[in-house]
Amino acid sequence: MGMTLGELAEQIGAVVVGDRTHKIAGVATLEEAGPDQLSFLSNPVYEKQLATTKAGGVIVASGVSSDRLNLLKTNDPYLAFAKAVIALHGYRRHPHSGEHRLAFVDPTAQIGQRTVLYPGVYVGPRVKIGHDCIVYPNAVIYEDCVLGDRVIIHAGASIGHDGFGFATSKGIHHKIPQIGNTVLEDDVEVGANAVIQRAAMGSTVIGKGTKVDCLVAIGHGVKVGSHCLLVSQVGIAGSTTLGHHVTLAGQVGVAGHLKIGSNVMVAAQGGVTNDVGDETALMGSPAMPLAQARRVYVTFTKLPELLERIRQLEQKVEELGQDMGP
Amino acid sequence: MGMTLGELAEQIGAVVVGDRTHKIAGVATLEEAGPDQLSFLSNPVYEKQLATTKAGGVIVASGVSSDRLNLLKTNDPYLAFAKAVIALHGYRRHPHSGEHRLAFVDPTAQIGQRTVLYPGVYVGPRVKIGHDCIVYPNAVIYEDCVLGDRVIIHAGASIGHDGFGFATSKGIHHKIPQIGNTVLEDDVEVGANAVIQRAAMGSTVIGKGTKVDCLVAIGHGVKVGSHCLLVSQVGIAGSTTLGHHVTLAGQVGVAGHLKIGSNVMVAAQGGVTNDVGDETALMGSPAMPLAQARRVYVTFTKLPELLERIRQLEQKVEELGQDMGP
Amino acid sequence: MGMTLGELAEQIGAVVVGDRTHKIAGVATLEEAGPDQLSFLSNPVYEKQLATTKAGGVIVASGVSSDRLNLLKTNDPYLAFAKAVIALHGYRRHPHSGEHRLAFVDPTAQIGQRTVLYPGVYVGPRVKIGHDCIVYPNAVIYEDCVLGDRVIIHAGASIGHDGFGFATSKGIHHKIPQIGNTVLEDDVEVGANAVIQRAAMGSTVIGKGTKVDCLVAIGHGVKVGSHCLLVSQVGIAGSTTLGHHVTLAGQVGVAGHLKIGSNVMVAAQGGVTNDVGDETALMGSPAMPLAQARRVYVTFTKLPELLERIRQLEQKVEELGQDMGP
Repeated sequence: MGMTLGELAEQIGAVVVGDRTHKIAGVATLEEAGPDQLSFLSNPVYEKQLATTKAGGVIVASGVSSDRLNLLKTNDPYLAFAKAVIALHGYRRHPHSGEHRLAFVDPTAQIGQRTVLYPGVYVGPRVKIGHDCIVYPNAVIYEDCVLGDRVIIHAGASIGHDGFGFATSKGIHHKIPQIGNTVLEDDVEVGANAVIQRAAMGSTVIGKGTKVDCLVAIGHGVKVGSHCLLVSQVGIAGSTTLGHHVTLAGQVGVAGHLKIGSNVMVAAQGGVTNDVGDETALMGSPAMPLAQARRVYVTFTKLPELLERIRQLEQKVEELGQDMGP
Repeated sequence: MGMTLGELAEQIGAVVVGDRTHKIAGVATLEEAGPDQLSFLSNPVYEKQLATTKAGGVIVASGVSSDRLNLLKTNDPYLAFAKAVIALHGYRRHPHSGEHRLAFVDPTAQIGQRTVLYPGVYVGPRVKIGHDCIVYPNAVIYEDCVLGDRVIIHAGASIGHDGFGFATSKGIHHKIPQIGNTVLEDDVEVGANAVIQRAAMGSTVIGKGTKVDCLVAIGHGVKVGSHCLLVSQVGIAGSTTLGHHVTLAGQVGVAGHLKIGSNVMVAAQGGVTNDVGDETALMGSPAMPLAQARRVYVTFTKLPELLERIRQLEQKVEELGQDMGP
Repeated sequence: MGMTLGELAEQIGAVVVGDRTHKIAGVATLEEAGPDQLSFLSNPVYEKQLATTKAGGVIVASGVSSDRLNLLKTNDPYLAFAKAVIALHGYRRHPHSGEHRLAFVDPTAQIGQRTVLYPGVYVGPRVKIGHDCIVYPNAVIYEDCVLGDRVIIHAGASIGHDGFGFATSKGIHHKIPQIGNTVLEDDVEVGANAVIQRAAMGSTVIGKGTKVDCLVAIGHGVKVGSHCLLVSQVGIAGSTTLGHHVTLAGQVGVAGHLKIGSNVMVAAQGGVTNDVGDETALMGSPAMPLAQARRVYVTFTKLPELLERIRQLEQKVEELGQDMGP
């Protein structure tokens, strides 16, 4: 328990400026850290807290200096901090191993080695779960779904329930059996109470390394590429495909049957209604290219002023017309 | 297992153009189907896939033709496809019948015939559930709620939890007991992790045949008419009423205490803040009639250009004024 | 069972105008109430129902009168009504006491007196739950979280799952162990399927008396003050702080790392992207001060008309320029 700043710096790839022998027991925020705790500065919002923090050490970017703090300098403070948390605290220690007796696992399901299923988990027929997965309490995995290795499903998430598929005839919505499944590739994490529908046919797919936050809703037949970040309350309608490294910020909505490229970023509450090419940043509802959206919204918030300028123009033009006579 | 295209066409009410004896084992998307699989074309987005699909048969609208594919022609390809999926695959076969031993059913609850309750389901005191219902894992039905026949509740949905009702006095929010219930009429389907509050008094009602998608939130005392479609992440605030055949697209919000008519459609992310008459299509936040909204949003995305035109007008008017002298 | 209007008026602090001996058995809406039921008028939307209601008594504000109804007059009809519901109906009677046998409680957790845990509840290691709490079916409380007294957690809510914290390096999202917890202070209520992440470090805190509605998502390290109302589907991103008595209406989104003051109100679907001072009402996405937002949105819905006025101005100015000659 506990390490010196010198030992820690070695593990996380940082350089100590200050007392290498100072002992650290854990991590805390700049505001809450004490002398035996390590903190970090990554978001400039918190820079002024460097002057007041009581942390025993602070991980900072190479350019930052302090005449009172022990600093651990690195090119990537956030990644170094992640490593420090792992070194000092490790990941969650599960209170049991394997399938908890209060989890339900269909006898035809296959569960990988070292995978942990918490109480209340439901694993349906023919489901395949890889190695080293964690499924937290009351998460549900419908029949025939497939999870890769190191997949994490948080509490209450639902994987592979029926897509919202109805054929409407004479005002009645006839349910279409959803015979596909959901596939979560390796290293996917799914947040609490997020929902990922099974495909009507084929598979809904969440690509390798993609992280899905709480209360995200993913429609049937959606294909999300690898290493995407889908932030809380995002919704993606059916049959849309996303490339790799797409980031959808909180509450973004994406319409169905679209093709979104790779390295796309959509700002919070955006609404995507058209195909999007690679390397695109979007904002707004309807979503527009970021530079355009910024100009649009600046003007938007000044609309009453615009209206007033139009009124004044109308008056002046009226006066000019009168001055010129008939 | 498997049918000829001729047999299938008879069952789904289509006309074969091509090889009636061709054998089909199942359905797949145009992109993924092989020679022993049936596909369909309903959304024009996928029309060009007709040229490349390897499907053994494709259900299409009457006007579509192909010189290389077996076609099943019909006036309503989507409905015909739904029937084909049922004919070839059927609905989900449940791994058990009746109440699973890991479901909790209060002894005062009444459960209809052939109704299936999955593990982790909670059915509270005096709940009534009709015949042929399916309640998927970890769904919760609070006391006194009533479900009709053929109701489907997906994983983790909550029916009849307390409405968000507080009387605020001197800065304290005093909880008002929510003594009403929630009623789901026949043929209602509720998506995964959707939530439908009980009424403060009387009933929150979801009308016959209405389909509620994942993560939808319905407030206390809301009355939704029959055959509505409430798409993922829609929210309807308390005491609002909806007529029949209302479609709210994804992430739409409807304020409380409103009266929404029948055959109303609101586009995704719309925000409804006023009463709405029958046969109305709305878009935007705040929601406007569709035609108006389209004009508004086209202008909206060109606001910076509008601002520039105003600037140029101001300059020209200034110049005109100077030219005319005092 | 049942009380006279006179007895009731005494309990709820109202004055009877009408028959004090009239017997009341329960409460109902103005529309549905019969002669043995009490109703109330608080929202002016329903005022015209006073003319037609069959209620045996109606709680109204002091200024309201009726020549046909028994009235219970009070300064705060909604609070008086809350008291009447409690007097006539009381709160939910739980079908069992203490921890249900189908709840899972880690042996290291501490549960207060008279606290009720429903079936399917998960309480992780070292969790502390106070006295007189209610945790409804399938709610999940991760390890080390702390709940005060009289806390209510509705079905399927998740308290203390991992924050969405990843350090991205070379395109890979590395999970940062979330070693903090979630603290719900006294008298907090959390709606069905709402999710409150644990902090990366320290605590995510929901202050005393704050009410969180269904499907709300609260990010890691958020601090919500006391007596706030967070309405359905609200999302608050990580590390943001809210003062006391903040009301966020339905589907509001608040960005991360912000400081929101006390007595702040944000209208439905608003998007808060900057710090907000005390005593502020906001509306819109991006959120603007209420008065400004109202003017902006009025102009917004008339944008096509604005565009037309600009076109006419351009034409007139063009004509004026021509009239004046070179």
